[in-house]
Parts: sequence; structure tokens; C-alpha cells
Amino acid sequence: MRIAYVVPGPMSKGPMGLKEMRRREALLNSWAFTGTEVSVVDVPNGPASIESAYEEALCVPATIDLIMKCEREGFDAAIIGCFGDPGLEAARELVTMPVVGPCESSLLLAASLGHKFSVLTVFDSLIAGQELLAYKAGVRDKLASVRATGIPVLELMKDPEKTKARLIAVAELCVKQDRADAFLFGCMTMSFLDLADEISAAVGAPAVNAGKAALKQAEMLVSMGLSHSKTAFPTPAKMLAGQSFEAMRVA
Amino acid sequence: MRIAYVVPGPMSKGPMGLKEMRRREALLNSWAFTGTEVSVVDVPNGPASIESAYEEALCVPATIDLIMKCEREGFDAAIIGCFGDPGLEAARELVTMPVVGPCESSLLLAASLGHKFSVLTVFDSLIAGQELLAYKAGVRDKLASVRATGIPVLELMKDPEKTKARLIAVAELCVKQDRADAFLFGCMTMSFLDLADEISAAVGAPAVNAGKAALKQAEMLVSMGLSHSKTAFPTPAKMLAGQSFEAMRVA
Amino acid sequence: MRIAYVVPGPMSKGPMGLKEMRRREALLNSWAFTGTEVSVVDVPNGPASIESAYEEALCVPATIDLIMKCEREGFDAAIIGCFGDPGLEAARELVTMPVVGPCESSLLLAASLGHKFSVLTVFDSLIAGQELLAYKAGVRDKLASVRATGIPVLELMKDPEKTKARLIAVAELCVKQDRADAFLFGCMTMSFLDLADEISAAVGAPAVNAGKAALKQAEMLVSMGLSHSKTAFPTPAKMLAGQSFEAMRVA
Amino acid sequence: MRIAYVVPGPMSKGPMGLKEMRRREALLNSWAFTGTEVSVVDVPNGPASIESAYEEALCVPATIDLIMKCEREGFDAAIIGCFGDPGLEAARELVTMPVVGPCESSLLLAASLGHKFSVLTVFDSLIAGQELLAYKAGVRDKLASVRATGIPVLELMKDPEKTKARLIAVAELCVKQDRADAFLFGCMTMSFLDLADEISAAVGAPAVNAGKAALKQAEMLVSMGLSHSKTAFPTPAKMLAGQSFEAMRVA
Amino acid sequence: MRIAYVVPGPMSKGPMGLKEMRRREALLNSWAFTGTEVSVVDVPNGPASIESAYEEALCVPATIDLIMKCEREGFDAAIIGCFGDPGLEAARELVTMPVVGPCESSLLLAASLGHKFSVLTVFDSLIAGQELLAYKAGVRDKLASVRATGIPVLELMKDPEKTKARLIAVAELCVKQDRADAFLFGCMTMSFLDLADEISAAVGAPAVNAGKAALKQAEMLVSMGLSHSKTAFPTPAKMLAGQSFEAMRVA
Amino acid sequence: MRIAYVVPGPMSKGPMGLKEMRRREALLNSWAFTGTEVSVVDVPNGPASIESAYEEALCVPATIDLIMKCEREGFDAAIIGCFGDPGLEAARELVTMPVVGPCESSLLLAASLGHKFSVLTVFDSLIAGQELLAYKAGVRDKLASVRATGIPVLELMKDPEKTKARLIAVAELCVKQDRADAFLFGCMTMSFLDLADEISAAVGAPAVNAGKAALKQAEMLVSMGLSHSKTAFPTPAKMLAGQSFEAMRVA
Repeated sequence: MRIAYVVPGPMSKGPMGLKEMRRREALLNSWAFTGTEVSVVDVPNGPASIESAYEEALCVPATIDLIMKCEREGFDAAIIGCFGDPGLEAARELVTMPVVGPCESSLLLAASLGHKFSVLTVFDSLIAGQELLAYKAGVRDKLASVRATGIPVLELMKDPEKTKARLIAVAELCVKQDRADAFLFGCMTMSFLDLADEISAAVGAPAVNAGKAALKQAEMLVSMGLSHSKTAFPTPAKMLAGQSFEAMRVA
Repeated sequence: MRIAYVVPGPMSKGPMGLKEMRRREALLNSWAFTGTEVSVVDVPNGPASIESAYEEALCVPATIDLIMKCEREGFDAAIIGCFGDPGLEAARELVTMPVVGPCESSLLLAASLGHKFSVLTVFDSLIAGQELLAYKAGVRDKLASVRATGIPVLELMKDPEKTKARLIAVAELCVKQDRADAFLFGCMTMSFLDLADEISAAVGAPAVNAGKAALKQAEMLVSMGLSHSKTAFPTPAKMLAGQSFEAMRVA
Repeated sequence: MRIAYVVPGPMSKGPMGLKEMRRREALLNSWAFTGTEVSVVDVPNGPASIESAYEEALCVPATIDLIMKCEREGFDAAIIGCFGDPGLEAARELVTMPVVGPCESSLLLAASLGHKFSVLTVFDSLIAGQELLAYKAGVRDKLASVRATGIPVLELMKDPEKTKARLIAVAELCVKQDRADAFLFGCMTMSFLDLADEISAAVGAPAVNAGKAALKQAEMLVSMGLSHSKTAFPTPAKMLAGQSFEAMRVA
Repeated sequence: MRIAYVVPGPMSKGPMGLKEMRRREALLNSWAFTGTEVSVVDVPNGPASIESAYEEALCVPATIDLIMKCEREGFDAAIIGCFGDPGLEAARELVTMPVVGPCESSLLLAASLGHKFSVLTVFDSLIAGQELLAYKAGVRDKLASVRATGIPVLELMKDPEKTKARLIAVAELCVKQDRADAFLFGCMTMSFLDLADEISAAVGAPAVNAGKAALKQAEMLVSMGLSHSKTAFPTPAKMLAGQSFEAMRVA
Repeated sequence: MRIAYVVPGPMSKGPMGLKEMRRREALLNSWAFTGTEVSVVDVPNGPASIESAYEEALCVPATIDLIMKCEREGFDAAIIGCFGDPGLEAARELVTMPVVGPCESSLLLAASLGHKFSVLTVFDSLIAGQELLAYKAGVRDKLASVRATGIPVLELMKDPEKTKARLIAVAELCVKQDRADAFLFGCMTMSFLDLADEISAAVGAPAVNAGKAALKQAEMLVSMGLSHSKTAFPTPAKMLAGQSFEAMRVA
Repeated sequence: MRIAYVVPGPMSKGPMGLKEMRRREALLNSWAFTGTEVSVVDVPNGPASIESAYEEALCVPATIDLIMKCEREGFDAAIIGCFGDPGLEAARELVTMPVVGPCESSLLLAASLGHKFSVLTVFDSLIAGQELLAYKAGVRDKLASVRATGIPVLELMKDPEKTKARLIAVAELCVKQDRADAFLFGCMTMSFLDLADEISAAVGAPAVNAGKAALKQAEMLVSMGLSHSKTAFPTPAKMLAGQSFEAMRVA
């Protein structure tokens, strides 16, 4: 099966660049089951990273366009490459293949590992948004806490040891103070540091890599022949009424 | 005080046109307290109407830009002129004046009128989204039901008598079957039909006009010197770090 | 419009006296929109202040009588002048004009200012009651915390600087420890100190004056032609069956 | 042990009269464990029956006075003889013996009999209030439904066969449509018809007599040496500060 | 009435022995109402104590067999003698007499004593299970906290003074930090230390002995002629279809 | 990887027999990713099918023993082959490999397919238990309904066309009346009919085969190197203290 990992910002043009995109693609393919091929693609423009509701809103229209293109090109599923799952509902309205969000996927996986879990996020200002995403995923009652590391996305990779130490320290608070049985990395750049095993061992609780979780969820859905329900994410009424995609936008 | 009612689609260029924009502006000013001046403005491009998650996503970036412009021009508050409150969090991040959503405003008002209330919406496909908005507003437990009329937004004004009859019939189901004590019009075009009093009298329960509710909420906030909390809707971190608004977007 | 602010205790005969009643009336009128006239009235007997369930129960019968009298005298709405909203449901059963509670009004307003809010109350023994009022208002999920200042109602005005310092200190705990985005004064005497702006500035989060919030809610309802639903607050069955108000009481 | 069953209305002066009070007293004593003595007492004035928030508010001050008197006279516990549990919190503030409400007691008992239970009430207008009482008792999640019989309290005893038939019909709806595993009589007059066994047999599900449940709860508490927590129902602060009971009321 | 207290482990053969069984029987009889006779019986084999889901699963089949035997021998009700209420639902399916769990009984009783209560348990690993039992009992919203003492069940009786001191210390945290108004002993061996009165006095909040609570609940149900609903705990379908009890097990 | 599918009843000796076990094994292997090998094993004795809490309790001890044996034999994960997930927590306490329940797995998967989902179960008497399992899985809020087909487990395969028609009819009620966006087969025998695609097409909503979902969940966990948290499912304290497994049981 072919899976598109769609980065909702212009990563190849930004500070991380094409090299990081290819590194992530290689990692994803190394995590995949035999027979799965993952391509990492990015949108032509948008925010450098997504750390606010504003930046999330900015990236959605181009991301949806790219997911539609991926479906036309024959991909079997798409993963939205940002932990906020920007544009998830809208994309599901416009394609029939599965569209997977790393947040939703990793929340559901973490929910199965124990009674409660925590999310490690970037800034305190993202906590309320993460709590809402847990509600949307349906597992709000299993969320022990959301805690921020305070390291901006674009600095997470600068000093991996420092980042790792901070992630361990924050995860330990989740386990000891908030009674989390597991925790997950609430940011794709955190996840692609590929430190889940080390951090899990240090903390003594399972750690979920959101990139891996999204990939496995996509593979699960495609292998089961399942996609998202059209009663939940219906084709827009104007399209059903025969209107072209372009005519929906008044220029 | 000066309040901007920001239509998140290009209404002046669309089927409803500038005439309808001016009619709504006149209505809003007729509803306002002495000393309030309301201006209705629209974005230059976007969807003709908003009836799906996709159309909502499409309209947000231009809507936020326009709200920022309104603040620079001296408005005291902005109302987002769509019942889905598109872009509400993002806009609040970027301005300091109050930004009011008709959905949030009318949900909170309806919550005060009785034990439970219902929302009349356009299509069945919007019910789950409305339920989520009630959760976000904090009053999910008071939502008796969301029921759809089945009349598309752009047809609501074609036959007002038919629309009124349908609204009454659906509202009666909310009151009799779902035990709603009050109900609200979950669509701005429904609200600007200005039929709340007639429909309320026919049904025997209070009816909330979402346009009026948003206006009153804006007037309330401005007159109290209140605006939305910056801990909840913080200025994006990159801006706080000195980056210009333009530099946030990689083209 | 004419609004009655009904004090549910004999304030004019008590330690605060008629002077404080007139000061509050002046404040309320200074906060009102053009065209609103507020009268502060009190009941002839009852508790000196309301700081327990017992004192609340004591004040209700006379308060309802006075609200009925206000309606007969042509007032357009009544505000119950105690943050516990004593007698709110019962009063709404007996009149058709809006009856507004400062607690319900300010909880709904605070809910719109961010993700979570806190209530500053008088004693620890009132916390559980405040949580129940938040549930009744429908916004329990948005309540970050209720914290007590420990200053009795009748001493709040004795040393306004000390009171202000305590309110700031407690509000800071709400924001920093409980993640409240806004807070409100859960006591009318606290609210009528008229310190919301100063305290908000010191704490860095919006502060809701419950007296102002109730006034604005009353103005909103009257200006929209709305009142509370008679399905939620029905006229007592014996009255509907033709029994006189007096005959309901067996002496 | 000696238990006072405190009727919060002037039953001996009303349509039911002293004879009915004595009949209820005899029933309660017949239901009691060996060694328990129950006295039925009523307040000197108040509403003839309690079917609205207004009537409930009217009855509370005299009811609390009577409960305090019962404690002074050596009773070991008091039951508030109305299913709305009027004055429950306030009475618990003022006495140290257990004060039991039939509603709270029977809700907790019904919760133990199956997964869900229903309440049979008098009028539709009481449903929301009953739901709130279930929330206060802590068992809202187990409440399958509240359904009204539509027979006024003062007519329940006029035609017991008709009342019984109606109770069976409504209880069957609770079991079949609402999936209640048990149901309870949400009115003391319903309960004192003493038809729980017959109605239970007809419906095929356990039926809880609220009068019996309150009695058993009182006996349970007294025999275990337990009473209500003073952190939850504290003595009013003014009393703790040495103020006399009378001085709390400004006449 | 005759009540069987069924110990779900082979207590008479284990470290506590027959002497402790008889001591508990004497205590139960001393707590009972006049006319109640309690017999303590144990299963022939199973775990020495129950401190994990595994040990709980081990004990259930023999416990159910013994409860069925008790019913055949004419007991009026059974109490499952372990705070985890192991086998409660299954036992209720197979007998018609009331089967009472100390956990469910004491949770419901504690819920009536204040706004919130806490459970004192043995190990941290049991906290999540206790929270689930509170959900099943329907009173999860009233659970302030579950806190562990860290003393294994089989060591609780070795040094009663040390155990008492620990219970007081943990209960004080529940009251002061978690705002519990009451607390209960979440372990039968804790309860049979019979220290509730002393500990309650030291802490200043009501303490519920789970053994007493279960006994009183059983007495309440038998005296009211009530038992658990057969819609909630139905006879297994194969039995209803005429299959013998033995034939249900394929050997 | 090697996955054990552990049937918690003696299927090879019962009416379905070894042939059905091998058929299920072949199906599971046909659904697996390349490199996965599934073995279906059953316990030596226990109930013929599991349709009550009693039968569930009966099967658990032997099932746990068999899962422990599978781990010793080198399996990488175990699936409990009954939709009630009997013994899930206990088994997780005793092994370190992942133990997967079809109910938990399929609930979490169904939660990701839309806003709400339904469960098709066998009998009405199982509905409350299914609701509890949804709560335990953390997705109770996404459960639209549980509806029973009324066909006993051992008859589901007798007339597959009749079973299919019934499943379609009940699933349609879930979608149309309960607003489910997806549904799942709440019984392994239903799932191994392998009719999900046909039934999904007929109903117009995704259908989740619980056997496939459990397999995919097991493959996901093993491929990610994850297992259940030992803080949630700890090794029993007596074992940690050095006691042998056998010594935990007093014979």
C-alpha cells in the first residue's frame, strides 16, 4: 500500500529543509510493515511551524488541496503531518481514502495502554487545545494531563540531549504526579527524534511516537478495507448537488 | 461604540449581494443600544456559503485578516458573521478587542433561559459539529438536541413562509420530544429573517436570534471594558519573539 | 427600561444601611446603557448577610414577594442582589418579566472569556455550593476552581486595600495553579467594591464584576424581548387551576 | 431510637388532616426495625402541598425550626417528609443528628438495585428539578428517566385503583422504553399508598417506597453512629462567631 | 433474618484462620439490628488475600458456588466479604436473594454524608480499580480521591496502633487536600479493625466501616422486601432455556 | 511475529469443534500482515459460550493460565478470543507481552471512524455490560447505542443468511435512529462470519470486524515495541515480594 505523509507547512523551503523531509520519510518506511511505501510531501506555502490556532488556520486550505491530489495520484491513505491534526474533518469530506491524524491515532493507542495517559506538548498555550482534541477523539476521560516542555518546535532538534532530558523530566511528572500510565509526544518533531524507547525506559512507562502511531493506524485501516464514515464527514452539499469544486469558491 | 460584523464569505459578490448586506446592517443597527454603530463588512473571496467543514476551513484566513484590519481601523469589537464561529480562536490570538461568535453567544444566552435548549440547524451533517461547538462553549449538558430543517442556506430566503413553517415545525419537535425550554437559530440567514418573535409565539418557548445575541454580547463586553483572556488566546509565540506577521508565512 | 435590583436582606436596616444601597444604585446606573434606570430595593426583614444555606433559605419568601411587587409596579426586569441567586427558580415561576441572578449571569459571561474560569468566594464552606451553581448554569466543565478569600461579607468594605490585596493574591492562584483564564467575584459586596479593572490589571486576566454582569444580562434580555421559559419555570399548578396566591398558604 | 418524620406543610390543618398523619405514623412504625419509634410532626403553616419551586421555598424556614426543636427534644434523627428534600442542606447546618431526605435516600437505594432506575413524579414541570436532585445525590448517571403521572398530589388518594393503574403504566414505560431496572415513587403521598409490592409485581422490576427508604437510611445512620459531615454542612459562620440564632435575622 | 457473610478466600485455612472468622462473625452480630443473625462462611480454596485483578479473578467461581449454596440453605441475603465486590454481578444472576457488596454499599452510604468522599485503599495499584467501582456504583462524581496506606492486607492487624496512625494520616490528606467530607475503609480487614469511631474523631469527618455498611444495606433490603433487578442481572439464557447448571460447563 | 488467539472456552470440545477453530485460524492468518503467524488455542474446560457475567467469571482462571503458557512458549502477543475481554486486566498483570481484547480494540478503532458508533450484541441483557466496557476503554461518549440481535451465539452460524439480514436490520437502526456513523460486531462468532464488507455496503456505514481489529491492534503494538503499562497492570504484590505463583492459592 502507498501512504502519503502530508506536511501542512512548506518544510522543504523552511529551516528544516528537504533533508529533514527525506530523513522522516526514511524513518517512516523503516517503521512500516512489509509492502507499505510511505512518501513525505509538503505544501507549497504556509507557516514555518504550527504553534498557534492562527498558524493552524493558515495551513489548512493548501493541505486539503494536497491531500486531494494524493488521492488522485493513487495513494491509499494520507497522514496529516502535524500533531494538531489540522484540516482532518475537512479533508475527510473531500476524499474517500482514509485520512489519519497523528493526534487522534496516538491518543487512541495511548488509551489502550493503561488507565490514563498524558500528552507532552510544546507550550502551555497549547494545553487547552490538546484537551479539546482528546475530547474530539473521544478519550478525554483517559487524559491524565497535558504538560509543556517549553522548547519551541524549531529548536527541538538543536540539542537532542537537552530535549531528551526535558522530555524525560516532564514525562516523569506526568507519571508520578498525574498518575499517567503512558505518555505520548504531542508534536511531530518530538516524535521524529525517535527517542521513544530510550525515554520510555528512563521513565518506566510506555511512550507513544505519534508518527509511528499514525502510520500504524493508516496501515490498519487500509489492510482492513476501512475508511472514515461518510455520515460523519459527508461530501459538501453543493458538490452533491453537482456544483464543481472550483465554483464553491467565489473569487 | 463601533462594532464590525465580519461576513466570512464574499457576500457582496455572491447570490445575496450587497443589498442583503446593507439590509442586515440596518437590522443590526435597529437592534443596537443607543450609541452603538454596526458596520457589516465582507471578505474579498471565499465560499458562497458555509455548510461543511471544508467551506469553513476555506474562509478562515481572509476572515482573520479582515478582523485585524477592523481593529486597526478603530472598531471596538468584531462579530464573526457565521454561526459556525469560523476562526474565532485564531482571531482572538491576533487582536485585543473582543471577537464574538454568534454560536457561542447564543448558546450561552439560550442556556440562561431554561434547563435545556435546542439548536435549529441546516443539514443533518452539521449536527455533530454543533454538538462540538456546544461543548466548546461549555454548555453541552444543556443542549437538548440539534435538529435540521433541511433547507439549504441559500434557499432560506426564497420562500420565507415555507421557511417559517418549517422552523416552527422543527422547533415544536425540540420542545415536545426533546424537552427543550428554548431554541435558537443555528444559522445567520435564519436569524436575519427576523422571525424569532413570531416563531416563539407559535411554539410557546423563547427563540434566540443569533445575530441579536452576538450583537448584545459584543455590546456587553465593550461596555464592561472586557475582552478575551490572553492566557486562553495568546499572541503566537513567533510574534512575541519579535517575528513580523508576514515572516510567519513561508511563501 | 426599568430594572429592579432586589436585595434579599434588609440592607437598609442593617450594618451597611441605606447609604450603601444608594451608592450601589448610583453605581448600577453609571454602568447602565443609555435609557436604563435601575432602582435598588430591599426586603423588610431577613438575614443581615447570606453566608450559609440556612441564611439563604431564610431570605427567599420575602424576596419573591418583593419581585412580584416590582413586576406589578412596572419594572421590566429584576436582578436578585445576592451571588447565591436565592429564589431564582421560584421567582421565575411567579412573574413573566426576566429575573436575573448575578451568579448565573457572571458564570455565563466568564465562560465566554477563555477556556476556564474561577470564582472567588467568601468561605471554604461555600465552595461546594458554588460548584453546584456552576452545574445548574450549565458551565461546570469550564469552572477551573472556587477559592475562598476568608474575609466575611460584612468586613469586605472595612479595609478595601486589604481586601484588594487578598483578592489579587487569590486570583493569582486561580490563574497560575488552576489554569483559570478569567475569574469573577462571587459576592455582591466584592463586586460593588468596583475594583475589577485594577485587580484584572494586577493579575493579568479578565475579572468579572457580578453586579455589572447581571445588569448587562438584564438589559440584553429586555432589549431582545426575551424572558425565561415557562416550560422551565411554570406557573404553579394550583394557580393555573384558579386558586388564589393567598390560598396556597395554609396558615 | 426515636425518629422524627417532619412534614414541611401544615398537614394536620389541610385537606389530608390529622387522620392521614396518624395513618402515616402507624405505617412508618410498622416498617421500622424493633426498637425504633417514629413520630410524625408537621409545621404550623405553609403550603398545602409542594408541587413547585415556589411552594418549596415557602415551606423551608418553618421546617428548619421544627427540625431544630426535634433535636432539642431528644430525637435521634429527622426525616424531611417531602420528596423534594426541602431545606435538607440548611437543616444539616443547624443540627448534629442525621437529617435524611426521602429523595436522596431512595435515589441511592435504587442505584444499588440495577444499572439504571427511573423516578415517577407528579407533573412534567418537576422533571428538571428531579434530575438536579439526582445530580446532587451523585447518581445522575444512573437515572434512566423521570416520568410524570399527571395526577396532582392532593388527588392521588381519591381513587387508589386509578392511581395504581397509572403508576403501573408509567413504570412500564420506564422499564421498557428507558431501560430502567428499578423505579421509585417520587412523592410521599404516592409512597404512603403502600403499593410498592403490588406495582413491582405487575411491572416486573423492584419498586422503591421513598418513605421506607428514608426510614431505613435514618435507622442505618443512627445504628452506625454516623451523621452528616460538618465540613459539608457547617454551622453558619455568624453562629460560630458567637452570634445568637435570633440575631441572625434582622426584623 | 439470616445473612451470610461470604469470605471469597479460604480464610479458615489461611494466616488469619478460623479464630479471625469467628471474631468477625461476632462483630457483625454485635452491629446487627435485633432479629438479624449473621454467619461468616468461607470458600474451600482460592487466594490468601485479594490485592490484584488476578487474585480477584481466581476467587470468583468458588464464591458464586458458595452463595448459591447459602440461598439453598435458607439465608435471606449474602454479603461478599471483600471490598472489591468480586463476583457481584455473576452472583446476582444466579440467586434471587439480595447479594450485597461492601464496596457498593459503603460508596452509596458515604455519598450521602457530604458533597465528596474518599476511599482509603491498600496499594496505589488498586486506585484505578477503585475509581472504576465508584463509576459502577454510580457515584464517581462524588469521589474526591482514593489514597493508599501502603500496608499489605495481611499486615494490617500486626500493629494496630501503626495501622491506625497511618489511616488517620491518610484520611487527613483526603479531607484537607482533596476536600473529602467523609471517607471509608476500602478493605475489609481495615474495616474489621473496628476503629472507625476513633479515626473519625481524630480526623474530624465521618468514617464509614465497609463491613457495617454492607450489613446495614443487607438488612435494609431484606426488611423492605427488595432484591436486585432481574433485568439488570438476568438468569443466564442457557438456564432459562432449560439447560442444567452443570451442563453449562464443558469439562 | 507470533500471535496467540486464546479462546476462553473449550471450543475444540464443544459444538463448534476443532474444525471451526482451524477455520478461524486460517481467517486470522489471511487477514494478517506479511510476517505474522497466528495460532488459535483454547482452554481445556469452561463454558460452551459466554453470554452472562457468570459464564465470563467461570472462564477466566483457565484463560489466564493459558496466556501465561503462551508467553513462556515465545508468543509475542495474545488476543483474548471473546468480545467481553474476560480476564484482560488480570492477564496483563501476569505477562509482559501485549494482551489484546477484541472489545477494547474494536471500540477504539470504531471511535476513529466517525463521531459516534454502535455495538451489535447478542442479548438485551448484555447491553449494560457493553456500556461499561466502552467506559473502561475510555470512549463511552462516542457510543451511540448498543443493540441486540437476539440470536444466541451458538445459533449465529446455523443460518448465515438470516443472521446477515438481522445484522443489517439492526445496524440500520443504529445508523438511522441512533446517529451512529459506524458499527461493530460485539461477538466473535458474528465477526468470524466475515460479513463486515457485505453488511457495511448494505447499511452504508463502516462495519468493524472485532477479530480483525484485535489482530491489527496486536500487530501494531508488537511492531511498535509497545506493551501495556506496568503501572496500570502491576505484577501482584505477593509475587513481587518473592512468593511463588502457586503459593498464592491456598488449596
